[in-house]
Amino acid sequence: MSFNTFGRVFRFTTWGESHGPALGAVIDGCPPGLALSEDDIQPFLDKRRPGTSRFTTQRREPDRVKILSGVFDGKTTGTPISLMIENVDQRSKDYSEVAKAYRPGHADYAYDAKYGFRDYRGGGRSSARETAARVAAGAVARLAIPEVSIRAWVEEIGGDTIDPAKFDAAEIDNNPFFCPDADAAARWERLVDDARKAGSSLGAVIACEATGVPAGWGAPIYAKLDSELASACMSINAVKGVEIGDGFEAARLSGEANADPMRPGNHGPQFLANHAGGIAGGISTGQPVRVRVAFKPTSSILTPVETVTREGEAAEIATKGRHDPCVGIRGAPVVEAMMALVLADQKLLHRAQCGG
Amino acid sequence: MSFNTFGRVFRFTTWGESHGPALGAVIDGCPPGLALSEDDIQPFLDKRRPGTSRFTTQRREPDRVKILSGVFDGKTTGTPISLMIENVDQRSKDYSEVAKAYRPGHADYAYDAKYGFRDYRGGGRSSARETAARVAAGAVARLAIPEVSIRAWVEEIGGDTIDPAKFDAAEIDNNPFFCPDADAAARWERLVDDARKAGSSLGAVIACEATGVPAGWGAPIYAKLDSELASACMSINAVKGVEIGDGFEAARLSGEANADPMRPGNHGPQFLANHAGGIAGGISTGQPVRVRVAFKPTSSILTPVETVTREGEAAEIATKGRHDPCVGIRGAPVVEAMMALVLADQKLLHRAQCGG
Amino acid sequence: MSFNTFGRVFRFTTWGESHGPALGAVIDGCPPGLALSEDDIQPFLDKRRPGTSRFTTQRREPDRVKILSGVFDGKTTGTPISLMIENVDQRSKDYSEVAKAYRPGHADYAYDAKYGFRDYRGGGRSSARETAARVAAGAVARLAIPEVSIRAWVEEIGGDTIDPAKFDAAEIDNNPFFCPDADAAARWERLVDDARKAGSSLGAVIACEATGVPAGWGAPIYAKLDSELASACMSINAVKGVEIGDGFEAARLSGEANADPMRPGNHGPQFLANHAGGIAGGISTGQPVRVRVAFKPTSSILTPVETVTREGEAAEIATKGRHDPCVGIRGAPVVEAMMALVLADQKLLHRAQCGG
Amino acid sequence: MSFNTFGRVFRFTTWGESHGPALGAVIDGCPPGLALSEDDIQPFLDKRRPGTSRFTTQRREPDRVKILSGVFDGKTTGTPISLMIENVDQRSKDYSEVAKAYRPGHADYAYDAKYGFRDYRGGGRSSARETAARVAAGAVARLAIPEVSIRAWVEEIGGDTIDPAKFDAAEIDNNPFFCPDADAAARWERLVDDARKAGSSLGAVIACEATGVPAGWGAPIYAKLDSELASACMSINAVKGVEIGDGFEAARLSGEANADPMRPGNHGPQFLANHAGGIAGGISTGQPVRVRVAFKPTSSILTPVETVTREGEAAEIATKGRHDPCVGIRGAPVVEAMMALVLADQKLLHRAQCGG
Repeated sequence: MSFNTFGRVFRFTTWGESHGPALGAVIDGCPPGLALSEDDIQPFLDKRRPGTSRFTTQRREPDRVKILSGVFDGKTTGTPISLMIENVDQRSKDYSEVAKAYRPGHADYAYDAKYGFRDYRGGGRSSARETAARVAAGAVARLAIPEVSIRAWVEEIGGDTIDPAKFDAAEIDNNPFFCPDADAAARWERLVDDARKAGSSLGAVIACEATGVPAGWGAPIYAKLDSELASACMSINAVKGVEIGDGFEAARLSGEANADPMRPGNHGPQFLANHAGGIAGGISTGQPVRVRVAFKPTSSILTPVETVTREGEAAEIATKGRHDPCVGIRGAPVVEAMMALVLADQKLLHRAQCGG
Repeated sequence: MSFNTFGRVFRFTTWGESHGPALGAVIDGCPPGLALSEDDIQPFLDKRRPGTSRFTTQRREPDRVKILSGVFDGKTTGTPISLMIENVDQRSKDYSEVAKAYRPGHADYAYDAKYGFRDYRGGGRSSARETAARVAAGAVARLAIPEVSIRAWVEEIGGDTIDPAKFDAAEIDNNPFFCPDADAAARWERLVDDARKAGSSLGAVIACEATGVPAGWGAPIYAKLDSELASACMSINAVKGVEIGDGFEAARLSGEANADPMRPGNHGPQFLANHAGGIAGGISTGQPVRVRVAFKPTSSILTPVETVTREGEAAEIATKGRHDPCVGIRGAPVVEAMMALVLADQKLLHRAQCGG
Repeated sequence: MSFNTFGRVFRFTTWGESHGPALGAVIDGCPPGLALSEDDIQPFLDKRRPGTSRFTTQRREPDRVKILSGVFDGKTTGTPISLMIENVDQRSKDYSEVAKAYRPGHADYAYDAKYGFRDYRGGGRSSARETAARVAAGAVARLAIPEVSIRAWVEEIGGDTIDPAKFDAAEIDNNPFFCPDADAAARWERLVDDARKAGSSLGAVIACEATGVPAGWGAPIYAKLDSELASACMSINAVKGVEIGDGFEAARLSGEANADPMRPGNHGPQFLANHAGGIAGGISTGQPVRVRVAFKPTSSILTPVETVTREGEAAEIATKGRHDPCVGIRGAPVVEAMMALVLADQKLLHRAQCGG
Repeated sequence: MSFNTFGRVFRFTTWGESHGPALGAVIDGCPPGLALSEDDIQPFLDKRRPGTSRFTTQRREPDRVKILSGVFDGKTTGTPISLMIENVDQRSKDYSEVAKAYRPGHADYAYDAKYGFRDYRGGGRSSARETAARVAAGAVARLAIPEVSIRAWVEEIGGDTIDPAKFDAAEIDNNPFFCPDADAAARWERLVDDARKAGSSLGAVIACEATGVPAGWGAPIYAKLDSELASACMSINAVKGVEIGDGFEAARLSGEANADPMRPGNHGPQFLANHAGGIAGGISTGQPVRVRVAFKPTSSILTPVETVTREGEAAEIATKGRHDPCVGIRGAPVVEAMMALVLADQKLLHRAQCGG
């Protein structure tokens, strides 16, 4: 598998940098005959698009997607689907400070250590702009799994969590935080605003659920559904943790409390709980597939931080440019995309080995 | 990548079932010229071996490894290294109940849903016995990364955590729990004993640290070091969560509190903190690489749980056989092995693209 | 893909050396539910087995296969199938000469140049004994493509070709040369005997045909059916050329002469010719899939040949040990196996992307 | 590995159709720090470009390449290099006949059988226009192997072969046939012209040689250098045969005649012959690496050929559009590109496993 490719049969490769002319994705292995136009992709990009509220970076990118191949007569042909998004608002800026000193928490030092030099304009390849390409690819993946519905939301910002009792899926699109709890959304507005004004930043936890996944998807041992989801989510910029089902909480439960008992149901067993997050032995059980993802606070802050220059001298650096005060918020559509991409791949893998 | 293969250049494939004649691993891509004998592998298998204390399953397996290929004159030749471990104590047992009804929390139902039937003897391929093959492969991987030291320990059992102030690496091998805190080890003895006697089970959290990893390992975007570690760890039986560095805790910190400032050091920058767990932008920074892994309580408990039969009828099932009351304990050497396997692979990948 | 793994969904990994304790293959991705026992594999190994006539090496290997995993209740489970063949007749021999000087035409020098040293006993990993593992894996692949019949034969030895007019499939198993032309078989008996007695060696051309392959298998662009067959066949020891359909002869035909016209048929088009060898655009057309493979004469000859020692000094070397005077003969079952393995993989790949 | 991706570490993915807006390649795993601009790529595209003489298709494509990512400050960054070539001369044409009936020898029927429908404009994805993307990627690969020189030429057109005694490398670029024999070039002018005027077509054989390849590249068993070359070349449109070194001719030689004896040399052994084409045991020996590739005559001919319609009815079809009378000619730069791509990948693979 390539470094910049994900998936085994339904695969996508992304390319592009923050300040290059464009970025994109090539999807390979997509089933033929799926109705696909740019209008199927754009709404998902619009969700992730920066500059839509004061709570995200003020970079203005229309993020218009173009389909360059793989579609004929409005349908996927089974050949590679090339998607391109042109960068528009690569604001002319003085990058001399970033070029010279490493921003702590960013990939600056690591890229230099690995490659010997780096594209320092907006973080180059390490920028979260790369996730636009994932979201575009994810929109295509959704078409390959029409039986599945996927929904992500923000569960926690800066340590302030939603109240599960107030969960209302209809609220998720009613606020700029993908927050299912209207009260929490109100609190977060202040919280994020304060961080933004202070030039500080906040972390977040995203939850994502896929319903309609039939039992049987997942390829033990090293392509388990949960293993693939963990890889997919951990590859997102700023992510530091991934949980399936109850995750770390499960480690605190007794075997009795963590059980997901079954009863006879109409279509396979009816489960009485879902601590497992819809996955057992790396294979879907037919229950909702659930993942939780921790985003660290973005490392771009106004407070100067000690650092070193490329030449190894002491320095201080503060980030004045455009950035998200809470990068996790825009992580929600990205986690959704990764869920879709993993599930599409696993559906095809299952069909390859087991038919049907 | 195959379902049962992990890695990109330094790769291993495992095979075998709980109650088959043997299990094993084939390692491909190992550098030539490394001194390797069975004695380099056996100590790691002995750590994971069942039946060494009353806190693990009473299945008695010597877990003797045989090297069947890839070594000549005591050195690796660069060709595939085939490792085999014969199963010895596949106790003759009546599996009719397990064959008939699904054990909740186990892979039974999922395997049936996927493959149409399953090897129900001891869980077949879904048994944690598969991890013996990983540990054997991991021992070989260590030889490919002599610059790195890897150490895992148990940080929490059944919600009872170690006291970081009492952390003593020398204690880890002094108790049957890989516990670095002698007081916690004493408490856990009672805790696990109680669970065992009650036929209950407990979860655990494992921490693992790799020191000596140079800056520059990790292949963005979809073979990031953290993404690979997440995939590797989540593929271990019973794992439900993975964290890099501060993990979910990082989501609760401000950007200022989460920063890892740098100062000039003797060999590259000196970091003043390691919230990131030694990885930035998916690439190692030269700091210790840190991962935490949550193991759920084993689903095998004495208390009967509601379930369904293969024919879809209501039933109850309790697990009377041999099993670990806390499967996470023996997870420690497995997490170590996965860390070694990921790092060996990333070292080779880095060398491929960037030389040196 | 690993160095020692072939295939994308139906994959196999081989391991083992000529004079190690055993060799084997691990098959991953095999569909579940196929009836499989060692008796399904052994007949194919027996065809390739050395020592069955005076026209092959006199090494006596029973080549008994053992299934170590992946089968339960006589059926494949969908988990890795581990196959092992123990080496029995690793005749104790003085290898000092081979250890010291490079045999021209063998892999000796190349392995040393690559790995720094080599297992010189019988060629180590570069020995054609590795193909036993392929034949075993190929026997399993056949079970996954019951709609297909595969047959290979020897078409040419030492430049003496069969007469197409005398082609009789029933003859193929009636002589030690897999020769479909009884007259040619009689001639080859003298030819190969003469070469054997003179300590010389001969090349051969193998043809292989698969019937029953439905239209639609093959994954353009870089996993085309013909591209995969070329890779599979060229990886066999001593192979120097691969042709699909008319191969090099097609380059001499006009477009008119090379056409494969179609007429309406009962099940899809009826083709009036098969210059293409059953493949167009990398995809099967429903016609028989045809490949031809050129084997060079084995490099082991009694006549001393100029060479150099490991230390770079001039030397002469002659091969006195056991070897095949015409290694191409035993290539027939190996080419069959590779055809089966490629087709099984392509069947599954097609099912993954296109369903059905 | 994806269907449309080639390579293991130095990998490229191509996308695009004959009549889509553009086509391109994404290169992943390229070493960082290589000087790269569009000017390094364009000359190779110009060699393959259609419309440069009356012996190739009259489609007029400037084939201007754009680098969209992976380069900063004139150097490769180690991140994906996205190359795009816009289609310009997708002449408006009536495709109703091609849409309705299958052109024998083309991929039309096979694509329909596989995918259920097809992009019939100029052959869609099955068009040889895809090879422009390979040539662009190959130009980048050359930069990764500066120690290697690669040269391809046409050795045979329509059965008329060059005279080896008249081989003059300097002639190759002096005629529109990449022909190293001036006399043959003169003959071919008439030959190809006659075919073109008659609406007929001719096959060709391309030879390609890489010098400067050090001993040790190649990854046995299933990523052997020859196996990779075979796969790479057989994936080119219209290719039906691949030979390494003496190829099929080697099958007619005795072991003595086929030997490549060695003598002490200044840098490793000096070989006295190169029947093997520079590869032994799948690994380069330090001699020139030689491959020969057979191209069938293009299936587009003016003479009507029997065929069937999509509905299965009898029809006749003749190709009136623009096409190459001998598609093999423009195959020369494509074979060079594939040689470069395989060698770059093998260099990196060797470095991964064996260092240096």
